[in-house]
Amino acid sequence: MTDKTSHFADRLNAQIKKKDSAVCVGLDPRLEQIPDFIKEKHFAKQKNPFTAAAESFIEFNKGIIDAVFDLVPIVKPQIAFYEQYGAEGMRAFKETCDYAKEKGVLTLADIKRGDIGSTAEAYAKAFLGKVDLNGEKSESFDVDAVTVAPYLGWDGVKPFVNEAVKYGKGVFVLDKTSNKSSADLQDLQINDGRTIYEIMAHYIDSWGADDVGESGYSLVGAVVGATFPTQIVSLRKLMPASIFLVPGYGAQGGGADDVRAAFDKKGLGAIINSSRGIIFAWESSDSFTEKDYAQAAREATLTMLRDLRWE
Amino acid sequence: MTDKTSHFADRLNAQIKKKDSAVCVGLDPRLEQIPDFIKEKHFAKQKNPFTAAAESFIEFNKGIIDAVFDLVPIVKPQIAFYEQYGAEGMRAFKETCDYAKEKGVLTLADIKRGDIGSTAEAYAKAFLGKVDLNGEKSESFDVDAVTVAPYLGWDGVKPFVNEAVKYGKGVFVLDKTSNKSSADLQDLQINDGRTIYEIMAHYIDSWGADDVGESGYSLVGAVVGATFPTQIVSLRKLMPASIFLVPGYGAQGGGADDVRAAFDKKGLGAIINSSRGIIFAWESSDSFTEKDYAQAAREATLTMLRDLRWE
Repeated sequence: MTDKTSHFADRLNAQIKKKDSAVCVGLDPRLEQIPDFIKEKHFAKQKNPFTAAAESFIEFNKGIIDAVFDLVPIVKPQIAFYEQYGAEGMRAFKETCDYAKEKGVLTLADIKRGDIGSTAEAYAKAFLGKVDLNGEKSESFDVDAVTVAPYLGWDGVKPFVNEAVKYGKGVFVLDKTSNKSSADLQDLQINDGRTIYEIMAHYIDSWGADDVGESGYSLVGAVVGATFPTQIVSLRKLMPASIFLVPGYGAQGGGADDVRAAFDKKGLGAIINSSRGIIFAWESSDSFTEKDYAQAAREATLTMLRDLRWE
Repeated sequence: MTDKTSHFADRLNAQIKKKDSAVCVGLDPRLEQIPDFIKEKHFAKQKNPFTAAAESFIEFNKGIIDAVFDLVPIVKPQIAFYEQYGAEGMRAFKETCDYAKEKGVLTLADIKRGDIGSTAEAYAKAFLGKVDLNGEKSESFDVDAVTVAPYLGWDGVKPFVNEAVKYGKGVFVLDKTSNKSSADLQDLQINDGRTIYEIMAHYIDSWGADDVGESGYSLVGAVVGATFPTQIVSLRKLMPASIFLVPGYGAQGGGADDVRAAFDKKGLGAIINSSRGIIFAWESSDSFTEKDYAQAAREATLTMLRDLRWE
């Protein structure tokens, strides 16, 4: 188990050093891509198909985590894929996070939440802090970090930062996302010539300025897509103390050279996420069948690791 | 039950006409404010405190819905308050929505989701459409409308609009939110002089242009806070076919005069939300005790209704 009293950035950078790896595996299960041998078992056994979906996700994810836990500092379940199966899906989400923690891997919940202050506080307590249970306080999801959407400004981010400070957790604020239409809003230029993602970088840098750990990084990180390598270079300068969460590697088109500028000279300060490219690697492989999905995920992780060492 | 084959804006406007009411009740249960006689019963009975919290929410919400269903066209549960209690909380969210539908009230899930295309699709199917259960398709949350955050641009909104078109549902995109620091991002002025919320209004208007119902309104609505009355006036002109969801009435400071410009001449095209001011009305009342929380909510709704008729 990780030490929750120490700073999130220090905990993450220590894991990156220890495993010599900045690979973040995205645990984004899609039922239609889960191997049949897993699905069929659970759909035969469970009366409630939502429970069967949840159990299929749990078994699949445990297989992936067992195969990669020694190779990656952190995993990132995208909550949408769990939430779509309601209460049972959320149970699978929690069991996945708990299992990753048991295996000594940090957990980053990709939730992209953001709301007015009092509501953001409810989310923040649920994922990073403790919730009220009629006077008693208890952890609910208890992950190591979350992603947050900044459309509502500081009000919507602050409650997450507050809980993160209190419990040694981290917050990754969306800045320049990996999707094509991120330009619709994020690339707009304001009257002083800066783009919205540059303004946002300024906010992110200042929001984290009070909470920098021993490794030189803040607990407020930034999401910057691998699909925008030029922006990675310029944003790294605007947010020298923010850990970058870089999605969009692999399936979305980003490569190792595209993300190199996200790292500092010691190879720290960034995590590069791949989801489909790793967890469903068996689908595009000639050497693996669905039974070997976990082994295929390990091989894909090792390949990505080598690519990210630029050897 | 409402007819899901007809257009969301028509269904909502028909409810507003029928009940002569544009009040939206925010179902935002906070455990510390749930009457003791409800909480104590469930915390005594249930071994799992998360189940006790969920059961308390369900009983409380059913009481509120029973008291107001004939007075309001729509209710808006804020999912954060449920989600904080994990899988059990999400069950309470679903049971609340299902109960409101049974009582002939539309349901608007305040989820503020927004993600890259393939992920947004998972959310959209979960809340508005149908999810895959190993080949079978089934409804998951099945609410009438959702709120969506636009930081990722059209990619992140489109999947919701697609499902809304297919199933007669609605989408409310955040434009100018009711919180103070909405200015951080939303009030920035771009190089042609327009603010981000004006740009966003332009997007929202265009995103809904292809899907206008018989009542003249689109299935893509906008969230515009009651706390910004001047912006309500200007935004109404920029989005003539969008239904406005107006939060920030009551507890957050907005009043009836502030929101008047959100409505068209027939009194249609807007819903005004109040959460704490209605569901916890008994707390600030001399005439009601906690046992009468539902009656207090009905009285507060009637007062708000009268205020919004400007009689």
